[in-house]
Amino acid sequence: MPLAIEDIKNASSRIQPFINETPVIQSSLLNDWLGHSILFKAECFQKIGAFKARGACNTVSWLIENNIKPDRIIANSSGNHAQAVAYASSQFNIPSTIYMPAYASKVKVQATQAYGALVDLSENRIITDEKVKQASLDKGTYWIHPFNHEQVIAGQGTAAFEALKQVETIDAICAPCGGGGLLSGTLITTRSLSPKTKVVGAEPLNANDAAESLRQGSIQKLNATPDTLADGAMTMSVGDITFEYLKQLDEFYEVSESRIIYWTQWLTHLLKLHIEPTSAMAMEAAFQWLKTQKNKKRVMIILSGGNIDNITQTALWKNNYLDSIPLLNS
Amino acid sequence: MPLAIEDIKNASSRIQPFINETPVIQSSLLNDWLGHSILFKAECFQKIGAFKARGACNTVSWLIENNIKPDRIIANSSGNHAQAVAYASSQFNIPSTIYMPAYASKVKVQATQAYGALVDLSENRIITDEKVKQASLDKGTYWIHPFNHEQVIAGQGTAAFEALKQVETIDAICAPCGGGGLLSGTLITTRSLSPKTKVVGAEPLNANDAAESLRQGSIQKLNATPDTLADGAMTMSVGDITFEYLKQLDEFYEVSESRIIYWTQWLTHLLKLHIEPTSAMAMEAAFQWLKTQKNKKRVMIILSGGNIDNITQTALWKNNYLDSIPLLNS
Repeated sequence: MPLAIEDIKNASSRIQPFINETPVIQSSLLNDWLGHSILFKAECFQKIGAFKARGACNTVSWLIENNIKPDRIIANSSGNHAQAVAYASSQFNIPSTIYMPAYASKVKVQATQAYGALVDLSENRIITDEKVKQASLDKGTYWIHPFNHEQVIAGQGTAAFEALKQVETIDAICAPCGGGGLLSGTLITTRSLSPKTKVVGAEPLNANDAAESLRQGSIQKLNATPDTLADGAMTMSVGDITFEYLKQLDEFYEVSESRIIYWTQWLTHLLKLHIEPTSAMAMEAAFQWLKTQKNKKRVMIILSGGNIDNITQTALWKNNYLDSIPLLNS
Repeated sequence: MPLAIEDIKNASSRIQPFINETPVIQSSLLNDWLGHSILFKAECFQKIGAFKARGACNTVSWLIENNIKPDRIIANSSGNHAQAVAYASSQFNIPSTIYMPAYASKVKVQATQAYGALVDLSENRIITDEKVKQASLDKGTYWIHPFNHEQVIAGQGTAAFEALKQVETIDAICAPCGGGGLLSGTLITTRSLSPKTKVVGAEPLNANDAAESLRQGSIQKLNATPDTLADGAMTMSVGDITFEYLKQLDEFYEVSESRIIYWTQWLTHLLKLHIEPTSAMAMEAAFQWLKTQKNKKRVMIILSGGNIDNITQTALWKNNYLDSIPLLNS
């Protein structure tokens, strides 16, 4: 049974005490240049700095609601999901352990610890994945998967749910694709509440397992760790649950690294927000989709988050892309 | 006759249709770490991306109110004042010419032009300053000085005026010092509406003409263009009008380049805002002031703006300062 709008509504009520209602922001200059209205749902202002807080908080409060109070919650992640699970567990005073690879940035390890989690560092991702699997067999331990979990998906769907309440009719809603949790939740919400709105996804060209999967009709895995600045979309493959939703997308774009950098620079400059490169992909998807439109449109972009380590930040600003104004007819 | 709170109130009513009421933002993590409440007035979300829109809009609307409609408005600036005057003039359909040095970043020239101004580029700052002086002699031409002008000061004072309406009692208000317009306006507002609140200023150690002037009791000029990333505070000297206000400051701190970078990185990371290094100086002033306090305090920081060119951005993120958590007792 696929998820329904009721699941999103329940998630929204459940997580309300633990998350921020994030603002919707516009740039009048960008709207002028493109000739369309672009609305940005600023999930960089979400708890832990990314939409992932929604899915983790929903899963933990759903467990409590169903009288399953784990002795320990665990997760494996080097990024936003680590902080999200640490934060969500701490809200219910449940101990958490996050398995992270040693290459995870110190600032992310610090933040995860600051939310009260025990961080278990291993040499590489293969070992962390093995450790979390092993630990999940312990009695009383609950493993929260970053995307292939119905309550995680329902939680991520609350971003679009909130956005559709905040603004008038929109023609398209664009979000980035890592494991597909955010897009799956966005699809469930949008198809129900605003069926005429197109749902558009984007992933890095250098990590295009979802695009390949959609083309081939079956889940495809990347062969090696992808080389992309969009670190929120480095997932090796989508999940069996999320893939079924992703098939319903109206459009899906693969974004080059230079366009990821281009939009990260421009959105930072125009919106005055600290946004991670994963967010910028959704803007490129909107840009490509708008090229195919004849009339003035209103598009919602879900800015996934604002957690960027120093190395990524340096790479993002190495070359200047602000010399070239964004125009659809250039 | 010095300016009074009535001048700030009038400025606030005058500019209301042309500016944004900017939000006040906090970081719970920063508050936890420091043990105080730090409130940030986010002027990076102001029109043109900086508080300067307030002073320019007030001056132009004050001219109109007094039946002085210039044929042309002019200014000399390589930074936020250029965009502010261009924006303010365009709101009243008055042509504007901005004299800028050729080294001004292309993105700032573009933005100034986008607000409808004619940009006159010259080889260096000496020539632009000469040109603007010459042009100001033309009949019907009005020159808006970036800080040493009562209506500019009154306009900048509306940032604190707005902030004091938005939040409960605060113990100190901190702002950066370039020519002193923002601090002068902040002093007038704060002394009147919240006389117990300390007013604290900050300037770059590498451009410490205001600190030197305060020590010597007379206006001191820098000998050469200062080497600082806080490009909003590169002014060679304060003005005779602003200096009289600056003498009333409760504290004034000189901030090293490494502390400017430290706080730019940390505030960007914690607040998820794109803030210019000039803004970060006010946080260091708060940090130094809090070191002298025994009880828990509530401090307001005026984040001056969020316009950063690519070269500055690269310099800001070259080294990683996010490894070292901000703590008062470290």
